[in-house]
Amino acid sequence: MTGRILVVDDMEPNIRVLSAKLEAEYYEVLTANSGATAIMMAREQRPDLILLDVMMPQMDGFETCRRLKADPITQHIPVVMVTALDQQTDRVDGLQAGADDFLSKPIDDIALFARVRSLLRLNSVMDELRSHLNNGQGTDATNKLMALSKQTGGKVLVVEESERFGNRIAEKLGKSFSCQITTDPKVASTIAATGFDLILINLATDLFDGLRLCARLRADEATRQLPILCMVDAQAKDRSVRALDLGANDILERPVDRHELRARCQTLLQRRVYAAQLRENIDLSLEMAFSDQLTGLFNRRHLDIKLEELQVRFNDNKEPSVVLIADIDHFKQVNDTWGHVAGDMVLQQLADIMCESFRAIDIICRYGGEEFVVLMPDASLDSAKSAAERFRQVIAATSFDIGQAKEPIRISVSGGLAALQAEQSAKQILSRADAALYHAKKNGRNQMIAAISSKKDTKLTG
Amino acid sequence: MTGRILVVDDMEPNIRVLSAKLEAEYYEVLTANSGATAIMMAREQRPDLILLDVMMPQMDGFETCRRLKADPITQHIPVVMVTALDQQTDRVDGLQAGADDFLSKPIDDIALFARVRSLLRLNSVMDELRSHLNNGQGTDATNKLMALSKQTGGKVLVVEESERFGNRIAEKLGKSFSCQITTDPKVASTIAATGFDLILINLATDLFDGLRLCARLRADEATRQLPILCMVDAQAKDRSVRALDLGANDILERPVDRHELRARCQTLLQRRVYAAQLRENIDLSLEMAFSDQLTGLFNRRHLDIKLEELQVRFNDNKEPSVVLIADIDHFKQVNDTWGHVAGDMVLQQLADIMCESFRAIDIICRYGGEEFVVLMPDASLDSAKSAAERFRQVIAATSFDIGQAKEPIRISVSGGLAALQAEQSAKQILSRADAALYHAKKNGRNQMIAAISSKKDTKLTG
Repeated sequence: MTGRILVVDDMEPNIRVLSAKLEAEYYEVLTANSGATAIMMAREQRPDLILLDVMMPQMDGFETCRRLKADPITQHIPVVMVTALDQQTDRVDGLQAGADDFLSKPIDDIALFARVRSLLRLNSVMDELRSHLNNGQGTDATNKLMALSKQTGGKVLVVEESERFGNRIAEKLGKSFSCQITTDPKVASTIAATGFDLILINLATDLFDGLRLCARLRADEATRQLPILCMVDAQAKDRSVRALDLGANDILERPVDRHELRARCQTLLQRRVYAAQLRENIDLSLEMAFSDQLTGLFNRRHLDIKLEELQVRFNDNKEPSVVLIADIDHFKQVNDTWGHVAGDMVLQQLADIMCESFRAIDIICRYGGEEFVVLMPDASLDSAKSAAERFRQVIAATSFDIGQAKEPIRISVSGGLAALQAEQSAKQILSRADAALYHAKKNGRNQMIAAISSKKDTKLTG
Repeated sequence: MTGRILVVDDMEPNIRVLSAKLEAEYYEVLTANSGATAIMMAREQRPDLILLDVMMPQMDGFETCRRLKADPITQHIPVVMVTALDQQTDRVDGLQAGADDFLSKPIDDIALFARVRSLLRLNSVMDELRSHLNNGQGTDATNKLMALSKQTGGKVLVVEESERFGNRIAEKLGKSFSCQITTDPKVASTIAATGFDLILINLATDLFDGLRLCARLRADEATRQLPILCMVDAQAKDRSVRALDLGANDILERPVDRHELRARCQTLLQRRVYAAQLRENIDLSLEMAFSDQLTGLFNRRHLDIKLEELQVRFNDNKEPSVVLIADIDHFKQVNDTWGHVAGDMVLQQLADIMCESFRAIDIICRYGGEEFVVLMPDASLDSAKSAAERFRQVIAATSFDIGQAKEPIRISVSGGLAALQAEQSAKQILSRADAALYHAKKNGRNQMIAAISSKKDTKLTG
């Protein structure tokens, strides 16, 4: 895992030393000698990570960080602040300015590379997801998500060596966090996926192996995305490195300072909320791509894909499936007489009835204006016709609400059914069902007709 | 980076040794003592990686691998084959059975962990993308992609220490690959993004630093996804490990065997095609979620998002924007007289004219049946009205094709415009434009009317 790192420091020798270290590890290095230059370069070059000195003339590191995190173009880039002294107040200020992590001078190489690896890795998946959403919806969408991700507090699982130590952590976290304490890592890995927002693990104990717990949480799909904050002794650098490499999101040195604890938890929670919203947004958008806006049923795109899949299954395993095309009789009159709003209400209620009338495995699509298609996998023509007939009867017996101060109306549906046949394209199957529908309409409407298939032509049964 | 690894071997002591090594590095280990058990466990437990012994009674490693790679449920799991002897023929057979990589017994720990880390990392992004697409579209969609990804040959960039060595590699690759050779890593990193499917780098030379080139290609966004295959000397294990950690996709030991070279290149290319199609499918689906199927214009969902963004920009910076609602006059007559197909053709041609009539930054949406909305960012009401008026004139002067053997028809459009105002919701702005459209219709159609805004009410100008 490599990447482009922007090193920001007002002292030329510091830049040289840090650049040399990073380049020796095959990172690409960009440099800036002031906050203003850093902001400009971050916007133009989009580095994967920024190492930012705190003490700089004019604009200091805190202010630079605040500005980077307020700019939609640069807000996603992880920022590691480099502090001259190991000051806890600096760390809290930095976290509040939006920094993702800290290193103190003189920089310990092993700590540096562990942080860099961890942040680059965590960011790469987010980057990929963001880029897809941006392609579909424009960058404003993801920026809005970022702004919405400001959450305070959450549910924390504390894994400590004793109840008493756990309570002390809970007390330090304060009231906006609700804590559950356990001293057993097995219990922790069992309950971690039950609604916690964050897990806090003490690595500085011999009573259990906290690193093993980190690994288990990351290996288990249900907890792979759950933020992990590890508490270590300041001198146990190798444990911190190991924890970060195993996928821990952040490290906190003991003795635990309450302000730093809260700030780090807050940062992790916000990142979690952002990541969850990003994923949800993508899932929702992908779902929308295959659904009809008005009724929530599947749309034609989804129908095309699924019908083709059924045809393949039929050709491979002779698994029988049936297609129904249903159409509301005289629907134009509904729109013309009561208006489009009333018409839309009818379509929505009809869609709800369809979902109740057919099986869960049936694929119900809005095909066009008042036309619907139901794909019935693994169904005989007879059983499909019975289902269609029941649906027709429910519709004929239903009063459709068309808005306040208007009498409910009655409608009817006609339908045509066709079973899948060998060597027929999706288009041909739909035409056969459509021909049957045409006969149902011609025959007086409010009826379901099935196309009986033969090798040469298609007959109909009323 | 950790994960769940399935170790498959018929010899209990081998399983014990390998499990102990992996567990010491904090991997979660599952075990199976036969091919059949391995297949069952892979289906049920979905490990992140499989270490598969070649020599097993009954079903050997090749057959087990073939079956794992033929099953939609397990085909995505990387398989590393463990061969008793370092046989090149075994490696080629394994690659053809779908194996992702090889290790020879006795297993070298450093090589083992480098392979495992590399495969787990490469797979994690794919897993995430796949899961989103599955959520939206069902697993069959991604399986189909996998089946489509069988590509043969491609364009390869060979980075060698001499033209002669490069030509030898090209000759070994054979005719299905077209090769370009360079001896300069700077040239390589400059041209890598210009259409190559794969890059082959010699790491066993002192003439240039091949690892640096790997790092540069991975750090650069344009080449981040490009497969890299590194050639190393068998004894230079540390270079292999370093290359894999920097993001090289695969390692090939020198002297280069032509069969192994081709098999590895083929595997990398197929993975590349699959990944590209997965990404494209997600992008396309996300795009579809915000576009109208018939016209390709944006849909209402996109309009809602963008209008809200413009309102925020107006409130923040007083950046003026205008909304136009346009509607085809008497469109119902078109559908009733010439049918829906003709109506759809008119809508499509009108959409094309809209895209030519308005600016590139304008957001053109199909709002409903024959109703369209144009968002004009950073526009005054006067300039927006001129643009709308020009559009109206083009429409009035255009002959619309409605299909073969039919005379082209003429239509007209009416429109209402409204400028964004402080403290108005998107809904209120659309109502104001809609009210103006209503007046345009009442006033005789084929005209554009703007709502003049005042604090108290809205006046109109014809």
